[in-house]
Amino acid sequence: MNTPSALEEMMAALRCLPGVGPKSAQRMAYHLLQRDKSGALRLAQALARAVERIHHCVKCNNYAEEEICSLCRSLKRDAGLLCVVEMPADLLMMEQAQCYRGMYFVLMGRLSPLDGVGPRDLPLDRLLRRAQENIGEVILATNFTVEGDATAHYISTLLAAQGIKVSRIARGLPVGGELEYVDSGTLAQAVLERRVVTG
Amino acid sequence: MNTPSALEEMMAALRCLPGVGPKSAQRMAYHLLQRDKSGALRLAQALARAVERIHHCVKCNNYAEEEICSLCRSLKRDAGLLCVVEMPADLLMMEQAQCYRGMYFVLMGRLSPLDGVGPRDLPLDRLLRRAQENIGEVILATNFTVEGDATAHYISTLLAAQGIKVSRIARGLPVGGELEYVDSGTLAQAVLERRVVTG
Ligand SMILES: [Zn+2]
Ligand SMILES: [Zn+2]
Repeated sequence: MNTPSALEEMMAALRCLPGVGPKSAQRMAYHLLQRDKSGALRLAQALARAVERIHHCVKCNNYAEEEICSLCRSLKRDAGLLCVVEMPADLLMMEQAQCYRGMYFVLMGRLSPLDGVGPRDLPLDRLLRRAQENIGEVILATNFTVEGDATAHYISTLLAAQGIKVSRIARGLPVGGELEYVDSGTLAQAVLERRVVTG
Repeated sequence: MNTPSALEEMMAALRCLPGVGPKSAQRMAYHLLQRDKSGALRLAQALARAVERIHHCVKCNNYAEEEICSLCRSLKRDAGLLCVVEMPADLLMMEQAQCYRGMYFVLMGRLSPLDGVGPRDLPLDRLLRRAQENIGEVILATNFTVEGDATAHYISTLLAAQGIKVSRIARGLPVGGELEYVDSGTLAQAVLERRVVTG
């Protein structure tokens, strides 16, 4: 064959992106070379910079460039409330709904036995330590899926054993619904109607 | 919002890829950060290296890392035949079909008035000069689409005016068919049954 090795390597490397198979990778590579070399260089720099700079905030576990992210450093937030979400996108949805002014903890996942994700694969020890730092209430805002519910149940048991008050946002979301795709009004209502699980 | 700027920039940069909107870019960015940092670094290097090293072969106009690509340098090819294709993927399909042992010229496009691509946007002057270098026959293997046919017609007129023999691969492909998606047997048959257009 006659394909330059740098081109073959670019096509192979593009397949690290989720949902990108051989045909898409080929199409992307040709598009970048033919029409958007500056976009390709920008992407190269952005990827390298992101991998180098982005870490997990030591308090909330969200992605951050600083050791402690700006939200965790903010003095305008209610430091006594801790909201647990599965993913960074869920935190963004909570912020967009403007219904909550406390702190967060991002699990970066959920319990999912079918995918081999058990309690030890989530940062639950860090969540427990964080919940013991003058937190008055932990609000569980994992998704209302089977996995999100199981995760919420596991965490509520864990925290309740330490005498920590735990609540769950209301099932105002449609069953099977995911935070990331719900409208702000529904999400705000669900936070308002949260109920105490234990404690 | 609380998104690190390096993360925002990564999401923005991912949108240079064709077919990637804001939601896909977000999903890709989180995937890379959470599960495949080495893949992200590999992609960053591959993109930078490809942009730096990949140029157009001065003879066939295909992508190459050398000034003249290995296919154009090969002494095993029939130097008197020149096959014109639209894209590098079409050249690869021709090679896979193992029906042709001559040289190539890759247009890197096709005439497409609706997209604003006219004769001046294709390297037709370079094709003409190449066709005048001891080429006995130019075989037009552009797609059998409206645009590919128009491109073939334009080129055949251009080359015939210089007394160059021009043929078109046979319409063995389904109407509207594109070389990239046809099976090797059909493509081989189409090359075999090519007919002289003029000259
Ligand atoms: Zn934080
Ligand atoms: Zn070449």
